[in-house]
Amino acid sequence: MDITKFAIPEIIFGRGSLNYAGQCALRLGAKKVFLVSDAGIEQAGWLQRLMDILEKEGIEWVYYHGVTSNPRDFQVEQGAEMYLKNGADVIIAIGGGSPMDTAKGIAILASNGGRIRDYEGANKVQRPLPPMVLITTTAGSGSDISQFCIITDMARKVKMSIITRTLVPNIAIVDPLILRTKSETLIIQSAIDALAHATEAYLSVIASPFTEMHSLKAIELIHKNLKRAVETKSLDSLEQLSIAAVSASMAFSNAGLGAEHALAHSLGGHFDLRHGVIHPILLTAVMRFNLDSRVAKMADIGRIILNGTKGSDRETALAGIDKLQEFFASFDVSLRFRDEIGEEGRQYLEPICKMAINDACNLTNPRLANWEELLKICEEVW
Amino acid sequence: MDITKFAIPEIIFGRGSLNYAGQCALRLGAKKVFLVSDAGIEQAGWLQRLMDILEKEGIEWVYYHGVTSNPRDFQVEQGAEMYLKNGADVIIAIGGGSPMDTAKGIAILASNGGRIRDYEGANKVQRPLPPMVLITTTAGSGSDISQFCIITDMARKVKMSIITRTLVPNIAIVDPLILRTKSETLIIQSAIDALAHATEAYLSVIASPFTEMHSLKAIELIHKNLKRAVETKSLDSLEQLSIAAVSASMAFSNAGLGAEHALAHSLGGHFDLRHGVIHPILLTAVMRFNLDSRVAKMADIGRIILNGTKGSDRETALAGIDKLQEFFASFDVSLRFRDEIGEEGRQYLEPICKMAINDACNLTNPRLANWEELLKICEEVW
Repeated sequence: MDITKFAIPEIIFGRGSLNYAGQCALRLGAKKVFLVSDAGIEQAGWLQRLMDILEKEGIEWVYYHGVTSNPRDFQVEQGAEMYLKNGADVIIAIGGGSPMDTAKGIAILASNGGRIRDYEGANKVQRPLPPMVLITTTAGSGSDISQFCIITDMARKVKMSIITRTLVPNIAIVDPLILRTKSETLIIQSAIDALAHATEAYLSVIASPFTEMHSLKAIELIHKNLKRAVETKSLDSLEQLSIAAVSASMAFSNAGLGAEHALAHSLGGHFDLRHGVIHPILLTAVMRFNLDSRVAKMADIGRIILNGTKGSDRETALAGIDKLQEFFASFDVSLRFRDEIGEEGRQYLEPICKMAINDACNLTNPRLANWEELLKICEEVW
Repeated sequence: MDITKFAIPEIIFGRGSLNYAGQCALRLGAKKVFLVSDAGIEQAGWLQRLMDILEKEGIEWVYYHGVTSNPRDFQVEQGAEMYLKNGADVIIAIGGGSPMDTAKGIAILASNGGRIRDYEGANKVQRPLPPMVLITTTAGSGSDISQFCIITDMARKVKMSIITRTLVPNIAIVDPLILRTKSETLIIQSAIDALAHATEAYLSVIASPFTEMHSLKAIELIHKNLKRAVETKSLDSLEQLSIAAVSASMAFSNAGLGAEHALAHSLGGHFDLRHGVIHPILLTAVMRFNLDSRVAKMADIGRIILNGTKGSDRETALAGIDKLQEFFASFDVSLRFRDEIGEEGRQYLEPICKMAINDACNLTNPRLANWEELLKICEEVW
């Protein structure tokens, strides 16, 4: 086995764990916290709740709210300026992947200077970041656990992957109570995002025994609980999805992802699409493309999805992929690109695929993919 | 599910990972490293190797070698004095549980002052510790991963459990190449120690989904690989034991242990016995004591040990415990206390059990145990 690294934040998990946010900030030496969130979280009341918790501990804060879905380079740059001007010392984000990735981008620029595009790729961040506490409000992005940060470069219309160990926050707070205010659509998209993380990480060329067990656990939990979570919003099922998202993130943060995420970054940057929208369309197609490179491992996934075997490893793997596609189809999601980007979008697939092969995620895909092969995959699911 | 916390160090795992020690020290800001090790590691050449790696990076070091098996309070106090006198700034330990726990004790006293007994129990350490890199040379103690530190109080003749999140080192380096210089006895004792960690953590009252999967993985890997590792010393099997020890430690560090470890601390402190010697005698007896409180979970363990089921959960659990005892018996270890401490030691069992009920590990045992019950267990395996 090659040398492998495994890094995760300290995790505080459970119903009501949001209440620990103030103590966490104090432990990290906070005098003035830089808060990052978005309109949805504000409206759901969670931001105010967090502000109250900080105030109770006597901690000052300043709030940056310029976050959108699929955060952009200029937002991160504005945020860093505000962080420095206000003399903040600890960053706390509460939200889904967008506020958390914005917070990470702000942390990079506040301590390392320059423009966010300077840090695209792996291990480009040299100086230590300000302490961070990330509070996830979805069970999906995994940004609260991971060393990944995805920011859209508006000039090139691409989601940049910034990957470095220092992006692992000091503390991740995962409170399943927060999921109760989420819409059905967001629960589905987030869970499918986590499922894609777990799957691609399991098949990655740098997967390790430490990441593999988390991948399989996540796949199992999402497959078992998503239907029930959507139908009942029961706290038990939402909690299981949260455990799955944390596990999936421990896996992909340390094992990397694959060609499906490379494509999702380029597609998402161009069309402003969420990962959770792209994965049901692309994931099984990319799995089929990768099958011959990872038959035994895809059979492991198949056995979980099928709850049993179906002939040889290859047959089990293929049946698993089919069943996974049926699983996606059982939710209200698109399974074809044309339904998301329309006929006028089709012309952009070629430049998008040419961009995707340079995404850091493509490096850990089990089968080397050139842009023509990626385009073929996209055409298959047109 | 209650609120649960999960904290582990950054882990660098794999053949040759020792070579990263210098870079790790630099990343933590080292100018003068405080090295902790013991005679066995010196003789095997690993200490010199580490010194060479540090020198190559231009890092000064000072070496503290006053470590014995089952480290003692006065050793830790001497070490802290030496750390402060020499103006060291990062602690690196290379060795088994003894040097690593000594290093942790030194870290506590160097930054928090006082005597080491002041910190016995859970969460008594207030101030941050110096940065630590722990390099394990056994696949067992898990001190490289855990928030535990076990130091013998010489006056009371007891192994004190010191448990606090800040004892999780910054970086753990796990290099299976180092295991090749270990004796057969040490490989067996270490693996059985890890197996006991995994088992007690799985049954603990504060086990969580994050710790449970690591427990089961560790039990499976040790059961599958220990025989082969002892017989062949193949690098593959030693590597599997290393993965198991890391997994077991992720579990117990966050889930705690149980009555078996509480007893092992009191017994080990009194008779200067290693954990690996005590567990084959006590573990299955304590499991039988706990059975009614954790039937389903013991059946999970049984299914791994039996590689299948045997009737009801209770029957599977019991058959698993029997099989585990056979597994221990298949190695050259004592299965009765009288073989280790002799008839003259028997009189001390009562005061030892009275001490054990106050050990922090007893608090997470699934069935509340009083000293009379612990004594009964010890008598059963006399």
